[in-house]
Amino acid sequence: MADTELRTDPAAPDFSGWSCPLPLRDHPRVVMGHGGGGAMSAELVENLFAPAFGGPALAGLGDSAVLELGGARLAFSTDSYVVRPLFFPGGCIGDLAVNGTVNDLAMSGARAAYLSCGFILEEGVELALVDRIARALGAAARTAGVEVATGDTKVVEAGHGDGVYLNTAGIGLVPAGVDIRPQRARPGDVVIVSGPIGLHGVAILSVREGLEFGVEVRSDCAALGGLVEAMLGATRDLHVLRDPTRGGLAAALNEIAAAAGVGVGLSERAVPVPDPVANACAVLGLDPMYIANEGKLVAFVPRAEADAVLAAMRAHPLGAEAVAIGECVEDHPGMVVARTGFGGTRVVDLPMGEQLPRIC
Amino acid sequence: MADTELRTDPAAPDFSGWSCPLPLRDHPRVVMGHGGGGAMSAELVENLFAPAFGGPALAGLGDSAVLELGGARLAFSTDSYVVRPLFFPGGCIGDLAVNGTVNDLAMSGARAAYLSCGFILEEGVELALVDRIARALGAAARTAGVEVATGDTKVVEAGHGDGVYLNTAGIGLVPAGVDIRPQRARPGDVVIVSGPIGLHGVAILSVREGLEFGVEVRSDCAALGGLVEAMLGATRDLHVLRDPTRGGLAAALNEIAAAAGVGVGLSERAVPVPDPVANACAVLGLDPMYIANEGKLVAFVPRAEADAVLAAMRAHPLGAEAVAIGECVEDHPGMVVARTGFGGTRVVDLPMGEQLPRIC
Repeated sequence: MADTELRTDPAAPDFSGWSCPLPLRDHPRVVMGHGGGGAMSAELVENLFAPAFGGPALAGLGDSAVLELGGARLAFSTDSYVVRPLFFPGGCIGDLAVNGTVNDLAMSGARAAYLSCGFILEEGVELALVDRIARALGAAARTAGVEVATGDTKVVEAGHGDGVYLNTAGIGLVPAGVDIRPQRARPGDVVIVSGPIGLHGVAILSVREGLEFGVEVRSDCAALGGLVEAMLGATRDLHVLRDPTRGGLAAALNEIAAAAGVGVGLSERAVPVPDPVANACAVLGLDPMYIANEGKLVAFVPRAEADAVLAAMRAHPLGAEAVAIGECVEDHPGMVVARTGFGGTRVVDLPMGEQLPRIC
Repeated sequence: MADTELRTDPAAPDFSGWSCPLPLRDHPRVVMGHGGGGAMSAELVENLFAPAFGGPALAGLGDSAVLELGGARLAFSTDSYVVRPLFFPGGCIGDLAVNGTVNDLAMSGARAAYLSCGFILEEGVELALVDRIARALGAAARTAGVEVATGDTKVVEAGHGDGVYLNTAGIGLVPAGVDIRPQRARPGDVVIVSGPIGLHGVAILSVREGLEFGVEVRSDCAALGGLVEAMLGATRDLHVLRDPTRGGLAAALNEIAAAAGVGVGLSERAVPVPDPVANACAVLGLDPMYIANEGKLVAFVPRAEADAVLAAMRAHPLGAEAVAIGECVEDHPGMVVARTGFGGTRVVDLPMGEQLPRIC
């Protein structure tokens, strides 16, 4: 990408003497991997954004932040959506933009209350397409019980966008007594996933590349606020919730292991991988553990509460196939290790960059 | 633009039978004017986004919404920033993204407390440039007393962005007893502007087009939370506040007149237009009333409070040149009418589309 023509600003400062703070060695420019939700994304946040922004809520960057304001305990989160293509089996950028942000709030135990919505439209895109996306967004918001409270629209010239980019930010109330965050993972916790993994990523891939994997794979795109409420009905003492989007289950588990300084032990056979996802991954040389999900969560739950939480999840339509896939351990802190079907073990690393660009 | 090649989605529905809900006659596609903050932007919101999103907070679309959550009264707002070029005299997209959203909250009387921040980076952009923007954003946040609480980064392929697009959303507390919104404009209100207009738009234009207008024109980009606090110290009974960004003073006043069903009478001579702005507008055939500002506000204040509010504004660095420019009247509801320097009058219309694209 070094020969990519860079648009320069006449008023931009001269960066020739600038020393890159990132441990990215050969990458003084942005590459796709910086948006992949893996190690390169983390490096960008830790080395560039965090020092630039400062302030106490930094640890929350890239996740939903929990804040006090006017006596209320709020969760606050944002995501931009650049998924390609805009429409895919099981959803479109409109409902993705609702569910993605609603889910980020739900991972703090919060029920989303209000969303903001910012459109960046490319000149020349059909208004019918914008309308279709806006209707999907509105319908998803009604399903999730969240209100679109404020919005903004910008237009950029043809060739400077890709039809529609969206940003949503969301706020929600965190219930009293609830403290769910990656740092709370403890050895002994049971690791639960709410259902089969890899559907969103493979759905996107199938339409983008025109591939077929036997049956149509539909994205699992869904709002998880109700499922989390059901889980909190079983116990308030959920330790960690995380939605394994970019970077998949592997990235989510690695982030938790690193944040809490614990190890995670998985039973690879227990991880539910639908056949079409397994087939697609086999054909393409991908690992289902790294494929994005948009309607699944992973939970770290105290052992004593695990059965009650699993039962509550299975009683909810979005958790019907919930299953324990492993446990939190004292060994190998910061690492995720899977026991393979053949009795061996393998380290499940944090992905470096981007397996599937623009997945959300 | 009809011959612009449109990127199509393989999975996109067929829109051939779709009937455009917008009164845009010849424009079934997005044009730059849809992002201009004028009549075309309003049509898009009223005819497309509002019906799609539904819900009671619709009136707040395009403005900051005031919400109840957990017993707290919150203002919530978002803007995406696509300004071109990224750096301009007096600021860059980073501080613009803080000040723009902080100001939207301030127009409800709220002091911004927390910001979210979403970057859409174009592959190939220098990390040094991203760093510079992030540092400007962090510095502006510290100046405004607002904390960047949560963020997100996406990367799009070269040719699908323009270096850096930004979105911020903000939340802040609305003080008890404060009810500031366009609908509260009343005949008799004094219309005050906080200082000279047109600086941001002309600053952008000068670097974009390589034009010089005698002296360097610097953007007025600034956070107005402190100025609004000073005004609320003079009276809690401010009726309307608005920051005249896209579409300038003309758009802001027209929106207020329409929302409250009142007329606005201006003294054109009283509107402070700096010489370089006047010169630039004369050369380019632009009207300063339509040029964007990023550090000014217009206030509708009960006559009995106007002197106290003006005094409070003038005691604040960002309101030192505040001045009354007109009044709210019963005549010509929904219309803004200026008395010209020659004793005549002219209607100051809502702009249709976009005088200066990508101004913020």
